[in-house]
Amino acid sequence: MKFDFTTRVFEKEKITLAGTEEYIVRGGRHLFSKLPEAFAGITRIGVIGWGSQGPAQAQNLRDSLKEAGSDITVTVGLRSGSSSWSKAEAAGFTEAQGTLGEMMQVIAESDMVLLLISDAAQAELYQDVFTAMKKGATLGLSHGFLLGHLNSRGESFPADMNVIGVCPKGMGPSVRRLYEQGRTTEGAGINSSFAVEQDIDGRATDYAIAWAVALGAPFSFMTSLEMEYRSDIYGERGILLGAVHGLAEALYRRFIDQGMTPEQSFNETVESITGPISKTISHEGIRALYGKFTGQDKETFETAYSAAYRPAREILQEIYDEVASGNEIRSVILAGTRLQEYPLDTIDNTPMWKVGAGVRAARTPGGAPLNPFTAGVYVATMIAQIDVLLAAGHVYSEVVNESVIEAVDSLNPYMHARGVSYMVDNCSTTARLGSRKWAPRFDYLLCQLGFPRVDAGEGANRELLGAFESHPVHQAVETLLAYRPSVDISVPA
Amino acid sequence: MKFDFTTRVFEKEKITLAGTEEYIVRGGRHLFSKLPEAFAGITRIGVIGWGSQGPAQAQNLRDSLKEAGSDITVTVGLRSGSSSWSKAEAAGFTEAQGTLGEMMQVIAESDMVLLLISDAAQAELYQDVFTAMKKGATLGLSHGFLLGHLNSRGESFPADMNVIGVCPKGMGPSVRRLYEQGRTTEGAGINSSFAVEQDIDGRATDYAIAWAVALGAPFSFMTSLEMEYRSDIYGERGILLGAVHGLAEALYRRFIDQGMTPEQSFNETVESITGPISKTISHEGIRALYGKFTGQDKETFETAYSAAYRPAREILQEIYDEVASGNEIRSVILAGTRLQEYPLDTIDNTPMWKVGAGVRAARTPGGAPLNPFTAGVYVATMIAQIDVLLAAGHVYSEVVNESVIEAVDSLNPYMHARGVSYMVDNCSTTARLGSRKWAPRFDYLLCQLGFPRVDAGEGANRELLGAFESHPVHQAVETLLAYRPSVDISVPA
Repeated sequence: MKFDFTTRVFEKEKITLAGTEEYIVRGGRHLFSKLPEAFAGITRIGVIGWGSQGPAQAQNLRDSLKEAGSDITVTVGLRSGSSSWSKAEAAGFTEAQGTLGEMMQVIAESDMVLLLISDAAQAELYQDVFTAMKKGATLGLSHGFLLGHLNSRGESFPADMNVIGVCPKGMGPSVRRLYEQGRTTEGAGINSSFAVEQDIDGRATDYAIAWAVALGAPFSFMTSLEMEYRSDIYGERGILLGAVHGLAEALYRRFIDQGMTPEQSFNETVESITGPISKTISHEGIRALYGKFTGQDKETFETAYSAAYRPAREILQEIYDEVASGNEIRSVILAGTRLQEYPLDTIDNTPMWKVGAGVRAARTPGGAPLNPFTAGVYVATMIAQIDVLLAAGHVYSEVVNESVIEAVDSLNPYMHARGVSYMVDNCSTTARLGSRKWAPRFDYLLCQLGFPRVDAGEGANRELLGAFESHPVHQAVETLLAYRPSVDISVPA
Repeated sequence: MKFDFTTRVFEKEKITLAGTEEYIVRGGRHLFSKLPEAFAGITRIGVIGWGSQGPAQAQNLRDSLKEAGSDITVTVGLRSGSSSWSKAEAAGFTEAQGTLGEMMQVIAESDMVLLLISDAAQAELYQDVFTAMKKGATLGLSHGFLLGHLNSRGESFPADMNVIGVCPKGMGPSVRRLYEQGRTTEGAGINSSFAVEQDIDGRATDYAIAWAVALGAPFSFMTSLEMEYRSDIYGERGILLGAVHGLAEALYRRFIDQGMTPEQSFNETVESITGPISKTISHEGIRALYGKFTGQDKETFETAYSAAYRPAREILQEIYDEVASGNEIRSVILAGTRLQEYPLDTIDNTPMWKVGAGVRAARTPGGAPLNPFTAGVYVATMIAQIDVLLAAGHVYSEVVNESVIEAVDSLNPYMHARGVSYMVDNCSTTARLGSRKWAPRFDYLLCQLGFPRVDAGEGANRELLGAFESHPVHQAVETLLAYRPSVDISVPA
């Protein structure tokens, strides 16, 4: 699949990733001055919802537009009586100033409606939203979920509106956090994909890019809402949340069974992943991580990689099939009703994550080890995730963001700061449900198919490792490193 | 939901289960003489497929009809070149005698077609099967899966055929094993449900009952194919296979963490479940099991029950929703393609199940302990499963068979004999996939929500236990005990 676009306001840049050409737009605070021109025709942007993305996007948009001297009003729309009302007020949105109001009212008065309510709420309310919107207005989504839901019902968006997507490749809190860090550091933020699903006035593309720039995205690449929801729902069930959780649990138990103390084991698994493994991949790429191992450690990495790749690939293919078929979206909708009776509870109330809290409290600088077995399992899962996406036709920007960058730059830092729940449960309900659903599967399959091979003395699989070493994704990752935020995210511990 | 039926050949019996009336038919070898009358109009029964149910049903039918002096031919139909061809020959079915042939040929020549190929194969081939069948013939299913698949595609069975179901509440090998044990013991066999989905000639009900009787079912109760596939696909993902696997793994790790040796822990978990827990429930009911605990043990049971009920209920409701919505059926179909590349591998190659093999080899008579914590978790999961089914409107016969009898009389004995893989992987592909999918979820949720409550000192929840003690299902289970096979299944170790 290939995407191209025309922008009248921003600069399109051609990049080559693993031999394929893509067009991107670099962001940066110096572009805020272009926002009024790009948002021409828009006087009010309604940001609907105050979940994971809502607070971040409403504040980033407001702050960017203010800096640009724009008179576009950013208004937060919430259900009457919503418990988030006071939180929005605390962030500076008020009824008095016309920057906070009842959801449907705000939708009716906005020229651009960013629908950031939960996926389940979108599925419940989308018809009311469509009806409430001004004729000719622009519907903005930060996730293709609603398109997936419409697809599964044989419906489509009303023809009289622009439909665009800007999908930050990270949870809302990261989108805000890096934007704030970026006030003094040009270009800090979270990469985004953008999509133009319907363009009725020729302005949709610039609206989308302007939105991404205003959020602080260091660079934005194009996709379609369909490819977005597939890769996004898949990715968070995979290495971004579900897989990293499941494999951390499996590795933790394994190391204890082999004689480590719980604290040691937490260090050699979670701390290793969120510390040196993520940092190395983030700054130097996956290949560079592999290059750090020599001798016995290299052999250990290779053995672990070879044992873990196949079970990971098998589950990841299952996830992709479930997402692409619409099953996973239907499951999320079905869960909506159950959540009333069985709200999601914490996932780190187990001994392992309690040990983790102690380990974090006792951290010493540079203390986390680069464990070659953990690295082998983690990287194998990451590469398997990449292979499934490539086979399904996703562009490299999307593949690398959904499998590598979002993991090491946005999400793992949250697990690093406060454990697995802090990472998973700061994400959308769709992500939280999916992570809970699939993490245990990675754990079991790794224990059932992966570890027994290692224990039976099966060493490195040269064919698999050859494919890994010559994998075209390395070049794509390394190219995209140049576009990474100029600062690491700093999550308060 | 209530079911009633008219039989011209067999005796209908009214039973009262938990205050509700149901009609059943008792089986037994003395009824084989009625088979020719009940099967009037049928000269050939084609048994299609040689998976879990095929071998058992083909042999039981043949043997029963022979004993009845019937001249109905039982012919096994397989794909040309099927690797099962020689297995069918070894069981006495041959081309020379007209009792073995190419699948579509056998279908075309049979008056009654028992379609026992895998669910995925049914989904692939059903149109060809419908086309090949004689006009006015009878289609027999041992599972409502095909109806679920047709439902999810908005299709239905052709109008010119009877469609009936006889669904043994146990895996194929149990159906054969207990029939063989029953040659000398009146009434041994596996309970079945039966359904009459389409009756074009007024004979469908007696065909269905005769089929059940010929398989050796000690008693048969009526359901619909829709309620059957819901309860069946749900049940095997729950306490029958998936849940018992997941909770055994979670309990095993917990006991080791508390200081037991692996062997002890296996004894106090799996051996306890497949030994005294299953035996007590099978012979005396669930309430009797609870009655065996006194003092501290009773308190331990109650604590475990109270902690495990809610997480179990939550997952079980999710499973039911996924099955009823058609999602789970779509997942099985999707898996069909993946299985070519990623065939199901064994699930007991982990240290736990290897320890289990040693424990089984070193068994002493009466050696397995009745662990109150294990029993509390197991029974809580069983009751949660029952509660979800009752809330969805299933009749007590179905609820008790799918949640209690099939577990303790048919499936757990296989895990007892040779471990979890021997139990799970003797079942249908649909069951094997579902068990692998859901077992880890029970494990994780029990560890995340259940055990932490116990560790935090939360004791018995009196409200939950009150509901348990006064649960109407106990009377239903105890009534149905009178209909259990007169011998326990003996699985060769």
